[in-house]
Amino acid sequence: MNTIPLLGPLEADLDRVERKLREPVSPDYPQLTAVLQHLLDSGGKRLRPALALLAGCFYAADGSLASDNLVSLAASVEMLHTATLVHDDLIDGALLRRGNATLNSNWSPGATVLTGDYLFARSAALAAETGNVRVMTIFADTLTTICSGELRQMFDRRELPHFSDEQSWQLALDHYDQRIHAKTASLFAGATEAAAVLGEAPEAELIALRDYGCFLGMGFQIMDDVLDFQGDEGVLGKPVGSDLREGIVTLPGLYYLRAHPDDEKVPAVVRDGRDGGLVQEVVEAIRASGAVDQSRERAREFIIQSQAALAPLPDTETRSMMHELADYAVSRKK
Amino acid sequence: MNTIPLLGPLEADLDRVERKLREPVSPDYPQLTAVLQHLLDSGGKRLRPALALLAGCFYAADGSLASDNLVSLAASVEMLHTATLVHDDLIDGALLRRGNATLNSNWSPGATVLTGDYLFARSAALAAETGNVRVMTIFADTLTTICSGELRQMFDRRELPHFSDEQSWQLALDHYDQRIHAKTASLFAGATEAAAVLGEAPEAELIALRDYGCFLGMGFQIMDDVLDFQGDEGVLGKPVGSDLREGIVTLPGLYYLRAHPDDEKVPAVVRDGRDGGLVQEVVEAIRASGAVDQSRERAREFIIQSQAALAPLPDTETRSMMHELADYAVSRKK
Repeated sequence: MNTIPLLGPLEADLDRVERKLREPVSPDYPQLTAVLQHLLDSGGKRLRPALALLAGCFYAADGSLASDNLVSLAASVEMLHTATLVHDDLIDGALLRRGNATLNSNWSPGATVLTGDYLFARSAALAAETGNVRVMTIFADTLTTICSGELRQMFDRRELPHFSDEQSWQLALDHYDQRIHAKTASLFAGATEAAAVLGEAPEAELIALRDYGCFLGMGFQIMDDVLDFQGDEGVLGKPVGSDLREGIVTLPGLYYLRAHPDDEKVPAVVRDGRDGGLVQEVVEAIRASGAVDQSRERAREFIIQSQAALAPLPDTETRSMMHELADYAVSRKK
Repeated sequence: MNTIPLLGPLEADLDRVERKLREPVSPDYPQLTAVLQHLLDSGGKRLRPALALLAGCFYAADGSLASDNLVSLAASVEMLHTATLVHDDLIDGALLRRGNATLNSNWSPGATVLTGDYLFARSAALAAETGNVRVMTIFADTLTTICSGELRQMFDRRELPHFSDEQSWQLALDHYDQRIHAKTASLFAGATEAAAVLGEAPEAELIALRDYGCFLGMGFQIMDDVLDFQGDEGVLGKPVGSDLREGIVTLPGLYYLRAHPDDEKVPAVVRDGRDGGLVQEVVEAIRASGAVDQSRERAREFIIQSQAALAPLPDTETRSMMHELADYAVSRKK
């Protein structure tokens, strides 16, 4: 695990989330325990549980630990995220994630499907541990949004967006926004909103926290898409240009296509990503264009919106941390 | 759809469940709508929702329709069942289910995985619609049991059970029981228990209904395993001997192996099921032995237990239907 430095004050609670995630379940199989441990060990920054914990801080006594329910919620969010990654990597045939071998690179597709399913089940059980119906509804709705977004991404794969005028450009952009909302922002928003529900937050603060999570998630995902072009393969732990290779056009690609309507290489890679040399060429062309900076700028706009959403919340240290965390989301290198 | 004749009195409520299952969701993709319709059209007997509706009858005025919450629960149970079938068929590479082409026979593995995930999400959302925390906990626990059972079945695949003495035989039988509990009985029990929770049943009746579902599920799954040997391929809608082909030894196989410890053909098929002629030979040998009748007898014992479990419930028409439904579970031909 490799948490974000500015989240230091949450360390004790993040440790509790970690223990919750690794709680042995019955019946227990050595193979399953080993694979869960591998998944959690190679797991990311724990940003999603941190968001739930941060949002919960507004409704707890100063310096107190998070409630058990909040820890269960935070663990549920991370477990759900892990489950979606397991199935995503299988579908993409990805061999590396965060520099580690993916489950599907070692296991059969069947075992990988079932492990993902098991993680979905565990995340539902952790959400149920909160004992809160509204939290369960947020959980189920978020899961539905994520899954239907993944289906849409699959249906749209290898389809080239067309924009001959401002209206069709706007449509392509809306389409992209819906996709990154489903993929990332919905779970960020679910984490902060559900924490507000557990804290019995006043409605205005609940909306503020949900909006913060949502805008932060949008900015975060755009940065992910930027890093897929501009990041360092060694730092990212996965090959660059992987979306394009899979036939998925993200924001930098959209800006590039708008500026270069007659380009023939991007459409060729979108239709068939097997020519590694061509992928590399296209990645470099997009990198060298203004498309990456434009995307970064749009990410920053969402980040500013996320910070503005915090206004109705009391001006505490937690609020400052959330503000800083949003800045981190666009300045990070991986 | 092809409901069980004796469930006639539930028709109006089963229709409501059907509409609930087919409720359009937003965002809506034509491809997804078509595939859901296909899955639901080729769907089975609606036994699981019927169990929830029947259990709920004890807590409703005579002749009244089921509550909306109960309909949501019943739909959630069927949706969860459908989700597991989609992933099961993918993993087994099954091409037919109930005489219809499976999703994976037409779609890519990726689309099939995601459709299953989406159905899991929908079933969670339907369970959340009940607005009952205890129901959500039953839902999450049942899902965990089903998924960990499927993982166990995968780990145990192509492993030959050994029983040199009574103790190891008992162990193999326990192992089998755990597997069919996870695969079938847990969801039957979850359906009846959750309906009792929604009906605010007294604890003794809640336990009675859960036990009824559990024992019925055990008997039902043994009969499924019997039909995999003895059924008519045309009626079943899938090839016979399919478990053995997949390296899974079910109850008839266990009884056969106990009676024929030196048999070499069953172990050969368990290790490698690709020789269709050998599979056929083994299926016929098991069919001709007493193993199928012994299995049927054990199913009948579970059915008697399920009927006995009903004793604490008021002696109503519903109770008679549940009694008859249990008899149906072992007399059915598909």
